[in-house]
Amino acid sequence: MDDPTAVLDRMWAVVPAGGAGTRLWPLSRAGEPKFLLDLTGAGRTLLQQTVDRLVPLVGGRVMVVTGARHADAVRRQLPELGAEDVVAEPSPRDSMAAIGLAAAILERREPEALLGSFAADHVIGGAEAFRACVAEAALVADTGRIVTIGIEPTHASTAFGYLRVGAPLPGFRTAREVVSFVEKPDAETARRYLAGGEHRWNGGMFVSRAGVLLDELAREHPGLADGLRTIAAEPERLDELWPGLTRIAIDHAVAEPAAARGMVATVPGSFGWDDIGDFASLAGLLPEDAGRRGVKVLGPADLVHVRDSTGVVVAHDRPIVVLGLDDVVVVDAGDALLVTDLAHAQDVKAAVELLKDAGRADLT
Amino acid sequence: MDDPTAVLDRMWAVVPAGGAGTRLWPLSRAGEPKFLLDLTGAGRTLLQQTVDRLVPLVGGRVMVVTGARHADAVRRQLPELGAEDVVAEPSPRDSMAAIGLAAAILERREPEALLGSFAADHVIGGAEAFRACVAEAALVADTGRIVTIGIEPTHASTAFGYLRVGAPLPGFRTAREVVSFVEKPDAETARRYLAGGEHRWNGGMFVSRAGVLLDELAREHPGLADGLRTIAAEPERLDELWPGLTRIAIDHAVAEPAAARGMVATVPGSFGWDDIGDFASLAGLLPEDAGRRGVKVLGPADLVHVRDSTGVVVAHDRPIVVLGLDDVVVVDAGDALLVTDLAHAQDVKAAVELLKDAGRADLT
Repeated sequence: MDDPTAVLDRMWAVVPAGGAGTRLWPLSRAGEPKFLLDLTGAGRTLLQQTVDRLVPLVGGRVMVVTGARHADAVRRQLPELGAEDVVAEPSPRDSMAAIGLAAAILERREPEALLGSFAADHVIGGAEAFRACVAEAALVADTGRIVTIGIEPTHASTAFGYLRVGAPLPGFRTAREVVSFVEKPDAETARRYLAGGEHRWNGGMFVSRAGVLLDELAREHPGLADGLRTIAAEPERLDELWPGLTRIAIDHAVAEPAAARGMVATVPGSFGWDDIGDFASLAGLLPEDAGRRGVKVLGPADLVHVRDSTGVVVAHDRPIVVLGLDDVVVVDAGDALLVTDLAHAQDVKAAVELLKDAGRADLT
Repeated sequence: MDDPTAVLDRMWAVVPAGGAGTRLWPLSRAGEPKFLLDLTGAGRTLLQQTVDRLVPLVGGRVMVVTGARHADAVRRQLPELGAEDVVAEPSPRDSMAAIGLAAAILERREPEALLGSFAADHVIGGAEAFRACVAEAALVADTGRIVTIGIEPTHASTAFGYLRVGAPLPGFRTAREVVSFVEKPDAETARRYLAGGEHRWNGGMFVSRAGVLLDELAREHPGLADGLRTIAAEPERLDELWPGLTRIAIDHAVAEPAAARGMVATVPGSFGWDDIGDFASLAGLLPEDAGRRGVKVLGPADLVHVRDSTGVVVAHDRPIVVLGLDDVVVVDAGDALLVTDLAHAQDVKAAVELLKDAGRADLT
C-alpha cells in the first residue's frame, strides 16, 4: 500500500462547476447558477464551501472547470486559484468533457497525477469524515482503479442514482468493489435498496489517476479522449476542437463500462450529502429557527413572519407574512417571486419553461 | 306619495369613509385604507366608484366624512366635491358620530334634507338596480321612516348582519317593515335564514330625513345628538367637542331601537353587493382571466404565471410564479408580501398583529 501523504501530494481536486439548477429558480438562474450562491446561509457560496472542504486534503491543487460566462465569477469567488487553474469551457459539453479536459491538462503537468472530481454545488456535512473517505479513495485509485464515493443512504430516495457494491477490496480499510451503476429507481425499488444494504447513492464523486481515466475513456470513446489530450497539448485549439467533442456524462462514458470490467471500486461515505436538487432538498438542509417551528428560512430571518405554517421561506429585502399553509415554499428573489409547496418542488423546472413561453427568458 | 324627483332633489349622499380594512393587508394599510384603493381593477378607487354610482341620483349633493389624515387624499380623488363637503373627523368615533355629523350639517343647510348613507368601500354590481332601490328608499324615508337597504342573500353568509323583514308597506312598490336587526349568525342559522326567505343582509345603507335621524338619536343618546348639532352650528368647536362624543355604531344607536318601535322599513335590493371584507371576498369579485382558469388576478396580469393552481394573486411590479396550490392567496404589495389561502382569509388581521409585535407597525 502506498504512503497516504505521498499519494495525496500527487492529487488534484477537480471541481466541475456547471448546471443551471433550474429547480431552484428564482434563486438560481442561468446567469447565476446555484454553485455561485450561498444556499445554506453559511456566508460562503457552494463553490467556496466545496473548495474550503478540499484544501486541507490537496492544498492549492484545485482546478475548477466552468462555463466561459461564469469564469470571471469563479475567479472572483476563488481569488486564491491560479489563472491556469480556472478552465473555461467554450460551451457546455457535459461532465466527461469537463472532467476529461482537467485530466488531460493534469496528465501533461504531472504524469503520475491523481484527480478527484467533486461537484461545485453539493452540500456535505462532516468535512473530516469526507476527507478520510477521499484519502482512502486516493490510495485505492493509485493502484489503477476508478474509485467512486458511495454515500450511505439515509432514506429511500428516488432522486439519486445508486451503486451496487460487491466484495471488500483486500488491503484497504473500507473499500469495496462496485458491481454496477443503477439509474434513479422507482419508490418500491428504492425501498428495497435501502433495506438490502447492498446499494449506495452515487454521489458523483470520482477519484482516479488522470492517465487511467483518459485511457479508459480512450477505450470507449477514442475520439473524445484524443480531442481532450490534443487540447491539453495545444490549448490554442480549444475553440476549434471543443464543439466537436461528444456530449456524454462521465458515468456513462467511463464509470459504467469500467465497472462492467471490474475496474471500479467504492469507498463508503457515511457523511451527510445532498445535491440540493430542489427546494424540498434545501428545506431539509436549512437549520430550524427556534422562533419558527417547522419553517426553514434562508436570507434575512427578521423579515419572515409565520403563523400556523410549515415549509421554507427565502426572504430578500421585504417582509413576508405566511399564514396557515403547510409545506409551503415561498421564494422572494427580489425581481421575481415563486410560491409553491414541497410536493411540487420538482415541478419548479416547469416554472422556468412557463416564463420562457411568456417571453421572460431574461428571468430564467 | 311624493313626487320622486322632488324628493331626490332634497337628498344628499353621505359617504362615511373610514375603517382600515386590516383583513386586506398588505394592500390596505392604516395610512391607505381600502376605500382609497382600486381593488376591482376598474381604474377607479372604491371611494370614486361609490360616488360615481350616486351622482346620477343626487347630482353634486355628495358629502364624504373621513378621518383627518385621509381628508387630503379624499379631496384629491374627488376634486369635484366642494370644500365644505369633505368633513374631516379629528379622530375615529364610529359610524353614528360620522353620519350624525353629516346629518346635523345638512339639517342646518336644508331642514327638509334627506340623507342616504353609503359606505365608501363596498362593491355594488348593477348600478341601475341600486339607484332604483335607493330612489324608492328616499320616498319611504320622506314619510318619516328610517329605511335600510336589505340585500337579497346569495349564500348563507356568516360574515354579515341580517334584517328580519315583516309586512309590505302599503303604497310602495317593494318596501317592507323591518322587524329586527340580527347579528352575524352561525353557519346553521345562516342556512336557516337563507332557506326561510324572511331575512336579508344588512348592507349598512340607510336613508332617512336628516332631522328624523337626529331626533331618533336624541331619544336614545341625547348627549350625542346635542353634541353633533352644536358642532354643526359652531364648527369652530369641532376639536373641543368631538373627543367627548359617544363611540357607537349607527345600527345600535338608532336603527335597532327604531326597528323595535316599528319605525324602520327596508327596500329589498337584489343587486350584487359585497363589503370586500377579506381576500376570499375579493377573489369572488374579480373577473376570471381566460388564460388562468381558477385564478383571479389583481394588478398587472402579465406578471402572473400559474400552473395547476387556484386562488387569487395580486401582482405589483415583478413576476410571480405559482405552482400546484389550491385556493392560494398571494399578495405582493411591493414593500411587503402575504402568502396564505382562502380558508385563512379572516386571519389576515392576525398578520397585522404579528408585524406590530415584531416592531413593524410602519408596515400596517
